[in-house]
Amino acid sequence: MSTKKDKHKFFNPNLNTLEPYVPGKQINDSEYVKLNTNENPFGPSPRVKETIIRFLENSETLLRLYPEPESDSLREVIAKKFAIESDQVFVGNGSDEVLSLCFLAFFAGRGCLSFPELTYSFYPSIAKLFKIPFSTFQLKKDFSIDLTNINPDSKSVIFPNPNAITGIALSIDVIDRFVKENPDKLIIIDEAYADFGKGSCVSLINNYSNILIIQTFSKSRGMAGLRVGFCFGSKALIDGLRAVKNSFNSYPVDTLATLAAISATQDDLWFENNIDTIVKTRSYFSQELEKIGFRVLPSSANFVLITHPSLEADTLKDHLFKNKILVRHFPETIVSNWLRITIGKRKDCDMLLSVLKQKVSGAN
Amino acid sequence: MSTKKDKHKFFNPNLNTLEPYVPGKQINDSEYVKLNTNENPFGPSPRVKETIIRFLENSETLLRLYPEPESDSLREVIAKKFAIESDQVFVGNGSDEVLSLCFLAFFAGRGCLSFPELTYSFYPSIAKLFKIPFSTFQLKKDFSIDLTNINPDSKSVIFPNPNAITGIALSIDVIDRFVKENPDKLIIIDEAYADFGKGSCVSLINNYSNILIIQTFSKSRGMAGLRVGFCFGSKALIDGLRAVKNSFNSYPVDTLATLAAISATQDDLWFENNIDTIVKTRSYFSQELEKIGFRVLPSSANFVLITHPSLEADTLKDHLFKNKILVRHFPETIVSNWLRITIGKRKDCDMLLSVLKQKVSGAN
Repeated sequence: MSTKKDKHKFFNPNLNTLEPYVPGKQINDSEYVKLNTNENPFGPSPRVKETIIRFLENSETLLRLYPEPESDSLREVIAKKFAIESDQVFVGNGSDEVLSLCFLAFFAGRGCLSFPELTYSFYPSIAKLFKIPFSTFQLKKDFSIDLTNINPDSKSVIFPNPNAITGIALSIDVIDRFVKENPDKLIIIDEAYADFGKGSCVSLINNYSNILIIQTFSKSRGMAGLRVGFCFGSKALIDGLRAVKNSFNSYPVDTLATLAAISATQDDLWFENNIDTIVKTRSYFSQELEKIGFRVLPSSANFVLITHPSLEADTLKDHLFKNKILVRHFPETIVSNWLRITIGKRKDCDMLLSVLKQKVSGAN
Repeated sequence: MSTKKDKHKFFNPNLNTLEPYVPGKQINDSEYVKLNTNENPFGPSPRVKETIIRFLENSETLLRLYPEPESDSLREVIAKKFAIESDQVFVGNGSDEVLSLCFLAFFAGRGCLSFPELTYSFYPSIAKLFKIPFSTFQLKKDFSIDLTNINPDSKSVIFPNPNAITGIALSIDVIDRFVKENPDKLIIIDEAYADFGKGSCVSLINNYSNILIIQTFSKSRGMAGLRVGFCFGSKALIDGLRAVKNSFNSYPVDTLATLAAISATQDDLWFENNIDTIVKTRSYFSQELEKIGFRVLPSSANFVLITHPSLEADTLKDHLFKNKILVRHFPETIVSNWLRITIGKRKDCDMLLSVLKQKVSGAN
């Protein structure tokens, strides 16, 4: 596409520099065990289905009306759940949209942005879209994020906690200190996977005006198909974000997704059981992988990053694919010899383990 | 908000210049007759409800998976319906998102954009967000769009057909000639209301590389609550748009909205009946309004713009609001003494007529 792109007289010249994000494969073939894009194996709370069906049975024609422009009712439910005010909450069409609007509102036009050398690969795509200069910073040798490595001149910082690809989390105390010591940097913590680990930094938004926290309904809440993300910050930051959103798309979250997110948020029991099962499976799966010689990074997310001393990641990925199992490989990164595997149901993990065990014994 | 905004050290400096779009009121009080945001009074095809319920009953847990990143199945159905190729179709989260991504892909960084002095007021909001210089051009005396008035130096042009606020449409022949005579301008035709009038310019995309057509499921298809918009253009333009979308939000249309849009597109009978009813009601409503002294612009949309020689629009709007009827008034525009009224069900129009009749006889 690039040749055509460069020549096209109707394109924004900046299009030539874009490197659009490439998501993991979405295969609609249920024969495949899909452990490549960190989806929740259990799906959303059963209340989601009930709520949507009830709405359609009773109020179908209300789909003719635009949804709430500011998702007020969902914002109130989220605020209540996290014990903050609803004007500290912003809701968008997936956390990817929330991220992009944040980049535009708070990173664009404000100097250098910093993020880890290994992280969610969507960040550089957004930065290029909005012409935001960025620098990356090195991880520690154990692959954890090293906040002392950040370019001191950067005006803003973003990292996922736990970090994407590695699954390693920083403690809330470490983040608290960093936010406190850097009052002139805006710091965004992308908590897409926080529910599977050391918890959220949400309490910090009442203490500091330079932090913004992003979460999603796609992972721990099992609703990737419905595209709802949200973020927390001071009222002033949220007001800025709303101004940008209302200049971009006034009604980003549809009526059914809003209803679904409300009912998912209210089902604590389902949520806790779901997290508990995934965390237990992660622990079991990691131990079993180590038993057959894999190195497994200590994950606080719903995935693990693994490598084997005598087997190439690329070969393993292809072998798993032949066995109808999808996992993710990041060949262009510093973990090019590692594989990222989503924690699925116990039976999915067992199937994957059995394929790997055969391969390992064949290799030895 | 502006004082805080101007001072905020974490904001993109461009935020100070934004004038976010302000949509019409969304009142969730069913006592009100809502004729202010051009929603379809009949809601979506009944197939939408059936399709979503069937999906939830059989495949609920599939909501755990991300939707198709490029909405392939919906694009194929739309392409088939309009007899074009699926790589000439782009789908987004409402036509507002499609508009914003088009502004970023094709208008930003390319000199002056032109649009009519009276039009969809979201255009200047998006232009300011992406720092796109724009100039507006005057309408004819009869309020129709005058393409001879466009600044010849402009690099791109956008207008709705039929035009928003007025409801007046240009013929496809006039647009065809304009696109042909201006091969160096990218021309976007916003066809949000085209189904209620003189039809679509979609056939032009096979003849010209400088035209893009935007449509929506919110108006004629009665699905404003589900946020699906789409556009047509050459494969090269659509490829550019996809690159921007994949740098902004990889999965903009959720699984249920996609299913809903597919089943709505396939229900021709419902669609044609619905349009026919609205067009007949518009004709009846316009005649009745003229009988009691209103001037009604010739509408090709699902709304009419009306004014009365002896009654102020502002007063009429307040009077209708007291009678639980919402209509739209645009006080800062050249039609500040006009009201825009959505064509509702016949009974809604009759209720409004009866309130206006009383007011008019009181005034005479």
